[in-house]
Amino acid sequence: MKPTVLTGDRPTGNLHLGHFVGSLKNRLKLQEDFNQYVIIADAQALTDNAEDPKVIEENIFEIMLDYLAVGLDPEKTVFFLQSGIPELFELSSYFMNLVSLARLERNPTIKEELYQKDFGRSIPAGFLTYPIYQAADILAFKADLVPVGEDQSPMIEQANEIGRKFNRTYRTPLFKEILPLIGYVGRLPGIDGKTKMGKSMGNAIFLCDTSDDLRKKVNKMYTDPGHIHIADPGRVEGNVVFQFLDIFDGNRDELLKLKEEYRHGGLADSKLKERLTAILDDIICPIRNRRSEYSKDRTHLMEILCQGTLKARSIAAQTLSEAKLAMGLLDLSKSTNIYEAQVQ
Amino acid sequence: MKPTVLTGDRPTGNLHLGHFVGSLKNRLKLQEDFNQYVIIADAQALTDNAEDPKVIEENIFEIMLDYLAVGLDPEKTVFFLQSGIPELFELSSYFMNLVSLARLERNPTIKEELYQKDFGRSIPAGFLTYPIYQAADILAFKADLVPVGEDQSPMIEQANEIGRKFNRTYRTPLFKEILPLIGYVGRLPGIDGKTKMGKSMGNAIFLCDTSDDLRKKVNKMYTDPGHIHIADPGRVEGNVVFQFLDIFDGNRDELLKLKEEYRHGGLADSKLKERLTAILDDIICPIRNRRSEYSKDRTHLMEILCQGTLKARSIAAQTLSEAKLAMGLLDLSKSTNIYEAQVQ
Repeated sequence: MKPTVLTGDRPTGNLHLGHFVGSLKNRLKLQEDFNQYVIIADAQALTDNAEDPKVIEENIFEIMLDYLAVGLDPEKTVFFLQSGIPELFELSSYFMNLVSLARLERNPTIKEELYQKDFGRSIPAGFLTYPIYQAADILAFKADLVPVGEDQSPMIEQANEIGRKFNRTYRTPLFKEILPLIGYVGRLPGIDGKTKMGKSMGNAIFLCDTSDDLRKKVNKMYTDPGHIHIADPGRVEGNVVFQFLDIFDGNRDELLKLKEEYRHGGLADSKLKERLTAILDDIICPIRNRRSEYSKDRTHLMEILCQGTLKARSIAAQTLSEAKLAMGLLDLSKSTNIYEAQVQ
Repeated sequence: MKPTVLTGDRPTGNLHLGHFVGSLKNRLKLQEDFNQYVIIADAQALTDNAEDPKVIEENIFEIMLDYLAVGLDPEKTVFFLQSGIPELFELSSYFMNLVSLARLERNPTIKEELYQKDFGRSIPAGFLTYPIYQAADILAFKADLVPVGEDQSPMIEQANEIGRKFNRTYRTPLFKEILPLIGYVGRLPGIDGKTKMGKSMGNAIFLCDTSDDLRKKVNKMYTDPGHIHIADPGRVEGNVVFQFLDIFDGNRDELLKLKEEYRHGGLADSKLKERLTAILDDIICPIRNRRSEYSKDRTHLMEILCQGTLKARSIAAQTLSEAKLAMGLLDLSKSTNIYEAQVQ
């Protein structure tokens, strides 16, 4: 049997080039060799968007469009909606008993996010405990591999701790170690070059951007502020356009020559930006076209998500049932025939 | 439509006379005029028994026996198993976002229990958050009334806070105020007279005790240590046998006369204890007999629990669906026909 990989996103906005190089391209490869599950983590998105769930609902459709548009294939990848699987939440509740408050507060990702959000003690319980829910999402599918950004690896560590503690407490081999797969490309910078590309930072190139959007965004990119006249020598380091070319330009020889020329003086920023625009449009154009095709049939998209969620639900329910058996909890479906017959 | 009452127990031991006077007698009356739901809170019991779930599974059968033996009627009362309803856990997760860590730590019941258990910061997340799960148990059934001990009323306050916050945040009238119904009889003392009767205190008279157990336990009761000879004057106050007679002896006139006689001197402890034994056996004997009848057919009991759990599950799923609609979350079952068809 193929090993299982679990990955996913919070549906809080359209996916952008940062997602494409950081995870989507990976997923395209992974779906060939793995059982790939992609979770749309709407309930997790609520943990810091509780007041505004509407944005989440809208983005479920958008994110499904992005997935299909980049080439993720429903025949190879199971897409599912977290809130469509109540069994994940029940499994989380059993994990809650195995994690101390102190351990949750020590989670580096949570600590960093707490600091950014300035919650203090008014931190919602849902936010503090979301690593436990995330552990259930991963362990329910017995994922072998979870691709994560570097900043997310403490989440996998916590999930593994929970799995181990469960196995030890209930003397079962049920949960195996999860291997974090750290992305092979670092963070893509935003068009402002300052931070990583982020949907809420106003510095993102989206997979749904038009050619025109794209040109405008590339034109806004910082180059070298000292490169005033075309003939002036320019700096390649810290130049956002070159940072992008380094990642996306397949013609490495030509790129090297361009860098030389830029350093020496005589290469216009506008030339570089045209080149980058063309390269990025080559990537985004087919995505944009497929996106527009898929967007015509919302029902079909929702059917794909439903089918995936049903499939994922049966796996999660199976794991929950195994977990309850290991714990020695009563399984009503095993005690009489009534329950099974009516619930199925 | 009849109003709804929700009540229940953690399945951690047999029920005793303290439960009988404190809650079971109440439930017998309530089932006549209310939709009564009785939750067997096995998942909640796990929050401080995570290492030893076996005791919980065993006691589910025992507690069902106790319920039926005292006269709770499956035609009038819906018995259900908390862990049989994953939707309750999903609903809890949405409530988690509406409660701050500080608020959880301020809950007086939790504070008291924390103090008793000496958890410190190593308190399991499941224990800290159990009031949120409890709120979901209550709100899922839109209970009008919840009978509680005095020490449990902060739990209802917390559930009401969550209901109000949900309604305010998502502009919905979904959850109504829950009324706590404080038991009309105070705590029943244990046979040691020192603390309240408790299953783990070694001071309980169980509903499954034999006549012989009962006699032995009543004989152990403290009376008045100064009442050495029958002719000595005795104290009624603080005398455990009289405390029990005050609660259980229906013949108030005769009880008054006995108190006079005891104070005056000339009434033997053994006479009083015989009287109390007879009175308690009159209560427990029919319970014991019905208990023994029901215990012959474990499958039948489990079927009653299954039927109740299925009924309760459909109510909880309905409320969850309403809550998600109010929140604006995507309801897959409404988006396509596939989901509905396959899950139902």
